[in-house]
Amino acid sequence: MTPRINGDRLLQRLFALAEIGAIDNGGCARLALTDDDKAGRDLVVSWMQELGLHIAIDAIGNVVGTWNVGSGAPVMSGSHIDTVRTGGKYDGNLGVLAALEVIQSCQESGITPSRPLAAAFFTDEEGSRFPPDMLGSLVYVGGMPVEEAHDIVGIDGARVGDELTRIGYLGSVPCPGLVPHAFIELHIEQGPVLEQEDTVIGVVTSVQGISWLEVTIEGQSNHAGTTPMSLRKDPAFVAAQITVFLRELARRYGGHQVCTVGKVDLFPNLVNVVPAKATLTLDVRNTDEETLRKAEQEITNYLSVIARDEDVSITTRTLARFEPVLFHDRVIDTVEDVAREHGLSLMRMPSGAGHDAQMLARLCPSGMIFVPSHRGISHNPAEHTDAVQIIAGANVLMNVMLQLSEMSMT
Amino acid sequence: MTPRINGDRLLQRLFALAEIGAIDNGGCARLALTDDDKAGRDLVVSWMQELGLHIAIDAIGNVVGTWNVGSGAPVMSGSHIDTVRTGGKYDGNLGVLAALEVIQSCQESGITPSRPLAAAFFTDEEGSRFPPDMLGSLVYVGGMPVEEAHDIVGIDGARVGDELTRIGYLGSVPCPGLVPHAFIELHIEQGPVLEQEDTVIGVVTSVQGISWLEVTIEGQSNHAGTTPMSLRKDPAFVAAQITVFLRELARRYGGHQVCTVGKVDLFPNLVNVVPAKATLTLDVRNTDEETLRKAEQEITNYLSVIARDEDVSITTRTLARFEPVLFHDRVIDTVEDVAREHGLSLMRMPSGAGHDAQMLARLCPSGMIFVPSHRGISHNPAEHTDAVQIIAGANVLMNVMLQLSEMSMT
Repeated sequence: MTPRINGDRLLQRLFALAEIGAIDNGGCARLALTDDDKAGRDLVVSWMQELGLHIAIDAIGNVVGTWNVGSGAPVMSGSHIDTVRTGGKYDGNLGVLAALEVIQSCQESGITPSRPLAAAFFTDEEGSRFPPDMLGSLVYVGGMPVEEAHDIVGIDGARVGDELTRIGYLGSVPCPGLVPHAFIELHIEQGPVLEQEDTVIGVVTSVQGISWLEVTIEGQSNHAGTTPMSLRKDPAFVAAQITVFLRELARRYGGHQVCTVGKVDLFPNLVNVVPAKATLTLDVRNTDEETLRKAEQEITNYLSVIARDEDVSITTRTLARFEPVLFHDRVIDTVEDVAREHGLSLMRMPSGAGHDAQMLARLCPSGMIFVPSHRGISHNPAEHTDAVQIIAGANVLMNVMLQLSEMSMT
Repeated sequence: MTPRINGDRLLQRLFALAEIGAIDNGGCARLALTDDDKAGRDLVVSWMQELGLHIAIDAIGNVVGTWNVGSGAPVMSGSHIDTVRTGGKYDGNLGVLAALEVIQSCQESGITPSRPLAAAFFTDEEGSRFPPDMLGSLVYVGGMPVEEAHDIVGIDGARVGDELTRIGYLGSVPCPGLVPHAFIELHIEQGPVLEQEDTVIGVVTSVQGISWLEVTIEGQSNHAGTTPMSLRKDPAFVAAQITVFLRELARRYGGHQVCTVGKVDLFPNLVNVVPAKATLTLDVRNTDEETLRKAEQEITNYLSVIARDEDVSITTRTLARFEPVLFHDRVIDTVEDVAREHGLSLMRMPSGAGHDAQMLARLCPSGMIFVPSHRGISHNPAEHTDAVQIIAGANVLMNVMLQLSEMSMT
């Protein structure tokens, strides 16, 4: 019989954790390294202790609870328990508590994997208090020296190192951390695709590369009534043209190409004044680095053409740039096989958002499992995933972890 | 010999008046009915008194100084002396002081017109402190009851009636006011056309009709990474499409059609969030009412098409709507004839901005004379018109007033 997790217990723990830092409408606010984050950590650690896990806290506050069975490097699963200021119950928490549930269910069922199983939560995945996001997993894999991470100052002026000490989570385990045999993260999709496609399991193949560009257009502020169209240098019009161009580019590229203009600021922003200046942001994502670069080049070319045509000056600033991350074929295939064996609807898909698993992918074979987000809503108290979908996802996680523990990854 | 004004005296008065409420970079701040406005009024009234004019202050604070020569209704000229918060030296002030200069030059040259000549300044033309703009001239022509105007509350919470009393300009002359024989206003263009065309005199034929529409687009806020393009309801994209449509409409209509999107507000206005909402303003102007209505209808149709195509909801609110004003043929022809007799370059043109003359046009044959604005800049300390252009404009004004005084307008 296929091993199964205890769905009721997983849901109870999700709801119990959500009571810490609870906000209106069922949401959660546990910004990283705050008192509420500490209380959440303490609760999860107490559950790890109940299972007799070996608990390792590292110098950036990542917590890894390991069930020391078998031998060799562990199969690790996990996510994060910090939230955004107006977050939901599922983002991150599901991945941590499902990993814990997998271990407990194995223990109770007398299943003895050939390798240790580890459940982890990483510090400050959201980056809402301390930028950048995915900080804990970045430091875990050696992407940032721990001293540098300690010196990061948050939006409230607090320092990461001081806050770790204050809440008692400045651990003694060094970073970078131990290299797992494999890493697998269960997470809510945070997008509408699975629900739209009436599919329960997302087999995550990659994380989209991200290119954020801030575009500043300077023209000539003029009276809206007295300035003929032919004499205008209108940054608002140019900003609109760029927005339309970006949509057209996304349509033309197709596939997983997404482009967004989410922020536009005009100055002086008055009904009867042709603006002097417009600033807008371009968010361009693709799963393929080469395609992402091609899109960036097209955008650069377009900006220089429209600057000349409309007689405005355009400057740009890169706000963020991440290459796409491809997950490990064997992990991806295992997720797909398990979901199929469970008779679940499934689809391969990229992740549009960033996750700890993309950091772990630098260190070991990694992958992710998505379950649906109702209406694609996340980072919001209204974030919701049906109980049956949560349980289905955790069951897939359990069997993927067990199969990975028996598998050679080299 | 053609009668001439005293250019040095006109410039000296312009600069003397500009010292009241002077701000950095040569600008002026005399918001309507403030202490600085009172000081400016007192100075202009003292000049009227020096010329022996009969001074009439009405119930909305408009001041008319009349040189009682000849008989019948006066030929009136004037403008306003209130400014925007960061205004220049010329807007309004030029028209008032040039009218005064015309009278003084006539007196000194022994010219005796057949009709009285009057120099007027109207209250709160800018509307920067008390909306709407052109308030004084609107009340003068009977467009708003004086009691209603008194009850208008300004941006600082002050009431028009109280402020008139406080600064001593709540006059006893009733509104609506006396009907002039004709009204002619000299004003800076506040646009770039005359300078661009290397032309000194603008023969103003009309004031553009104005249609201001606020458009609110509501879609679906989504994660910029996880939401496929096909599932988006993106108000920022729709706002951009409307902006591009408006430009295309202006180009297609040609002539004096101008369209401006000067204000755009996205919510929540974040780089990685497809906005939930966008609000933008459309400023559409034309000299022809029928064309303006056609443009409005096209815009309405476009909004309903794009709302359907992009699956967003669009609501609109009219912020302002003024029909175009046509000036009086005989006044227009007189301005053109005089400018030509003076050997000045000239062109017929509409006014893109609102002026007191458009209110007076409801009451009597009216017209306007424009002189160039350097780089089209106005409502700004950098507002500038060359001295030779100012003097040329005032000389045209003088001869137009004298010709109108001899002319039957019926």
